[in-house]
Amino acid sequence: MTRWKLTLEYDGTGFCGWQKQPDAVSIQQTLEDALDKFCGEPVALHVAGRTDAGVHARAQVAHVDIARPATPRTVCDATNAWLRPHKISVLQAEAVDKSFHARFDALQRSYRYTIINRRTTVALRTDYVWHIRRMLDVDKMKTAAALLIGHHDFSTFRALNCQSKSPLKTLEKLTIAQNGDEIVFDVAARSFLYHQVRNMVGSLTLVGTGRWTLDDFKSAFAARDRTKGGPTAPPQGLCFWEVTYPQKS
Amino acid sequence: MTRWKLTLEYDGTGFCGWQKQPDAVSIQQTLEDALDKFCGEPVALHVAGRTDAGVHARAQVAHVDIARPATPRTVCDATNAWLRPHKISVLQAEAVDKSFHARFDALQRSYRYTIINRRTTVALRTDYVWHIRRMLDVDKMKTAAALLIGHHDFSTFRALNCQSKSPLKTLEKLTIAQNGDEIVFDVAARSFLYHQVRNMVGSLTLVGTGRWTLDDFKSAFAARDRTKGGPTAPPQGLCFWEVTYPQKS
Repeated sequence: MTRWKLTLEYDGTGFCGWQKQPDAVSIQQTLEDALDKFCGEPVALHVAGRTDAGVHARAQVAHVDIARPATPRTVCDATNAWLRPHKISVLQAEAVDKSFHARFDALQRSYRYTIINRRTTVALRTDYVWHIRRMLDVDKMKTAAALLIGHHDFSTFRALNCQSKSPLKTLEKLTIAQNGDEIVFDVAARSFLYHQVRNMVGSLTLVGTGRWTLDDFKSAFAARDRTKGGPTAPPQGLCFWEVTYPQKS
Repeated sequence: MTRWKLTLEYDGTGFCGWQKQPDAVSIQQTLEDALDKFCGEPVALHVAGRTDAGVHARAQVAHVDIARPATPRTVCDATNAWLRPHKISVLQAEAVDKSFHARFDALQRSYRYTIINRRTTVALRTDYVWHIRRMLDVDKMKTAAALLIGHHDFSTFRALNCQSKSPLKTLEKLTIAQNGDEIVFDVAARSFLYHQVRNMVGSLTLVGTGRWTLDDFKSAFAARDRTKGGPTAPPQGLCFWEVTYPQKS
């Protein structure tokens, strides 16, 4: 039995998200089905970040135990062959120590959120961006974003059905970069509350449009109350970017 | 009657290309249908670069004469409303001089071609890239690309059904940039032969994989013969990037 660390890219469009659900097509089930065919027996995946319906991944990580002997190249190629025509790709397969856990060992997870900010409609990359028509003041959003860095109670940005034990998280990074009509949020933390990134982005856009002042944003954050927060940004703008693990000694 | 310069973004996926065809859905026909509804009468579009099926545009330019009085904002918004749900967007509408011609006045057209170069399958942006599994030597491709700059006979890269009077064109720019597994070609000229960009990219990839030496590439180019050239790169990697016109005096 070998434990494999799999690095995954997927397009979340049309999937019900990572997690298996009885009546919908999930990334997890689709990938496990492909692995089952390769292995000749049922396997179970554990993932670093369970993404929602419509959310994409550039370098997601999952692990799986496989009895059938194989080279890394075979694990990649055979699984990818069975995955066709689904938009899920195993970018890399590495044999790792039995103690490795994709979810519990993760030191930092990062996400990217992309907004197209212009009055006119969007025709390109519509599955990968959030289109906002009202002009956003990026400098104001940056000022508000800086308030979120560090160890805080993020209840205002926590989905009601979040299963995390505590609303306390440490936000390590939240940068906002503008390039033409594209606005990109890069966010990193050891872990996030459910919908935290999308809720932070949604609230920051209220500051960007001027509907909220910086003080409104501060009050909402301090309230530790989801009902005081802004809207949840739509899923398709979000991409699980990468995850880091302790370096092998 | 006002002549309008329209800047257009579109996703070429599923369209038969820019140009109207009797039994297929074209960008031109879809856009003219939307404009007809807005104007209440048939209009005719003239475009800077007639793109092929599956080719995208980031800032294509077309012009059209419209009798109905309107502001630039109304031309944009009304046309975009009629265009739904097609992935075509009028980014900008400008009232221009009657002498302006989107096709004949263009000083420079530029295209971007994007390759994802890796062994494993691609899941993200599949409609916008060409996936090549064999590793490409980008430095060798850059050396070959440099040979194409300037005024030459580009018959080797000219589609058989090209309607241009002469195979002589002046290639002003062909840069190749690598960022991780993404390889981006930026190409510019006053005008191009039919399929020229895709044929140049296809031939350059033969140099990149080592199937052609630099001398093979030189010979093919010097042969002025399409049958000596490399394959036509697939359409979805190509995007009409922008077009420049003389500055208004």
